[in-house]
Amino acid sequence: MGDFTLAVDVMGGDFGPRVTIPALAKALSQHSNLSLLLFGDESQITPLLEKYSLLHSPKIQLHHTEQMIDADIPFSKAIRQSKNSSMRLALEAVKEGKAQGCVSGGNTGALMGLAKLLIEPLPNIERPALTSLIPTMNGKSTVMLDLGANIEVSNSQLQQFAEMGNLFAQVMLDLVYPRLSLLNIGTEENKGTAQLQAVHQQLKKRQDLNYIGFIESDKLTSYLTDVIICDGYTGNIALKALEGAAKNIISLFKKEKADSNICRNTKRYLLKLIFYRYYRKLQEINPDRHNGATLLGLSKVIVKSHGGANANAFYYAIDYAIQQIEGDIPNKILQGLSQNPLIK
Amino acid sequence: MGDFTLAVDVMGGDFGPRVTIPALAKALSQHSNLSLLLFGDESQITPLLEKYSLLHSPKIQLHHTEQMIDADIPFSKAIRQSKNSSMRLALEAVKEGKAQGCVSGGNTGALMGLAKLLIEPLPNIERPALTSLIPTMNGKSTVMLDLGANIEVSNSQLQQFAEMGNLFAQVMLDLVYPRLSLLNIGTEENKGTAQLQAVHQQLKKRQDLNYIGFIESDKLTSYLTDVIICDGYTGNIALKALEGAAKNIISLFKKEKADSNICRNTKRYLLKLIFYRYYRKLQEINPDRHNGATLLGLSKVIVKSHGGANANAFYYAIDYAIQQIEGDIPNKILQGLSQNPLIK
Repeated sequence: MGDFTLAVDVMGGDFGPRVTIPALAKALSQHSNLSLLLFGDESQITPLLEKYSLLHSPKIQLHHTEQMIDADIPFSKAIRQSKNSSMRLALEAVKEGKAQGCVSGGNTGALMGLAKLLIEPLPNIERPALTSLIPTMNGKSTVMLDLGANIEVSNSQLQQFAEMGNLFAQVMLDLVYPRLSLLNIGTEENKGTAQLQAVHQQLKKRQDLNYIGFIESDKLTSYLTDVIICDGYTGNIALKALEGAAKNIISLFKKEKADSNICRNTKRYLLKLIFYRYYRKLQEINPDRHNGATLLGLSKVIVKSHGGANANAFYYAIDYAIQQIEGDIPNKILQGLSQNPLIK
Repeated sequence: MGDFTLAVDVMGGDFGPRVTIPALAKALSQHSNLSLLLFGDESQITPLLEKYSLLHSPKIQLHHTEQMIDADIPFSKAIRQSKNSSMRLALEAVKEGKAQGCVSGGNTGALMGLAKLLIEPLPNIERPALTSLIPTMNGKSTVMLDLGANIEVSNSQLQQFAEMGNLFAQVMLDLVYPRLSLLNIGTEENKGTAQLQAVHQQLKKRQDLNYIGFIESDKLTSYLTDVIICDGYTGNIALKALEGAAKNIISLFKKEKADSNICRNTKRYLLKLIFYRYYRKLQEINPDRHNGATLLGLSKVIVKSHGGANANAFYYAIDYAIQQIEGDIPNKILQGLSQNPLIK
């Protein structure tokens, strides 16, 4: 893979440059073919670049702007605020071909809306879908989409999500004939909404897809499937419930780990050893490592990081974007869709 | 509280009497005012009653039936199979006043359908809602409804769920002015479906309810609210995702615990001690302890146990039914609703 450039909204997310710059420093050290276009407030960014010895790095171009989009305002307001904002400038750099992808931890609605506005969609895809790799208990990953871009979808849009998820899993998980499932409240054919029952029948007839039926949300991480398809409302509810549970349980053990640090008796070394072992186990399913949702269905790689991401989590969002650029995902999906005899 | 009787579908659930009888034996030992009407196959039940020294207990009446409803068939089929089934006979005993409540781990659709058919609904409640207490990270509980009884609901039905949840939390959690929240994919007013936005505005105007706004599914166990209100599809997706994550993570540690049992070196005692400490912590949020969903809005207590419940979990479902009978829940909700000036 040749060199490539990532446009980054340095100001996005709850912690701005304090989180994004350390994450970018790590990404640069891991990917020698990576260059960065950074958008944000010079006065906040420069000291951090200096700290990480990146102030004069030839890999970094910093574009100063003090404008940014507030985190939680609705899209209609955000669009009015967006001119010269760090997020919009990053997306425009991608649109103009100056970068192959964009990462932002800013306002989700604004990022999705602006990306749809600025970045060309793939042909035959009506709506892009927020797509993530979620961790499974056996240490592998499952693709899940839509995670919140589309509150309500049509039957044909759900089928498009299935097609995109299929191609995404082929490239990102290196699978030949990925298993596809529809998320539902039961696995029997009569379960769930009329829409799910109808799309289930449509997908069953598709010989080009390895559709294996409904899956319930208690099996998201069970590796029973490779692609989980749902509307954005359902996906968002399910994923957040999963992440909330994982974060909460992990936090129980982090507290325990901190407690162990003040043990001053002879058991101390052993305690640490054991806690470390637990901690490693939990790290495998730590949501941080699966931070990043891509807006699949656009002609470029646009990745949303969690707003509350720490530097480690933001690094994984960058890594997720890089994997997609290196895997040439938008093009692979374009080619896959155009080879599909069912798509006109 | 005086004596009361529980009608139990002994055959329901994946393991039938092997799980239900040990759970019932424990319930009898804990509740001296409890009597049981058991429905199921004598030839399977009698040996187990003997094992637990309950064969001639004056607290138990066994009604033999070999009929039972298959676990996963749709309601239309189940209703035809239901005559003389253990589940239907248990519900009929409640209908006829022979028992104050019913517990079953059988076919969920059949139990909900038959209960709605046989048990009188409370006035002004259009549809009963599956209601559970979910564990919070601080060791307390939050009421959540609907968890799967109603795939699609009207705005007024969601308001009825809010009213029932409010009264349920007052009695079961001993709260004066419980906090109510609507489950949504964001906390801002513009988030989610048109229905959620409309019901949000309606609940905000209700001065008799302590409605505090939207809650996201990653906060289900954060004790930010006392009652979480949603349609049955959303509730089912969210709760199963939460339970799946909890079960999976707990299973990681159970495995670790089993491993520790074969440690044969000097560290053995210490390891056990530490694992026990972890294990206790996890038990607090173990879904087993919160097994049981009640069909709230009926004039009697009808509790559904997980089909896959073990004896410990089934015991908690029985305990949940007993708490509701002792708390006189159906009557309290009836009184609360009739005192509400907004309800005609």
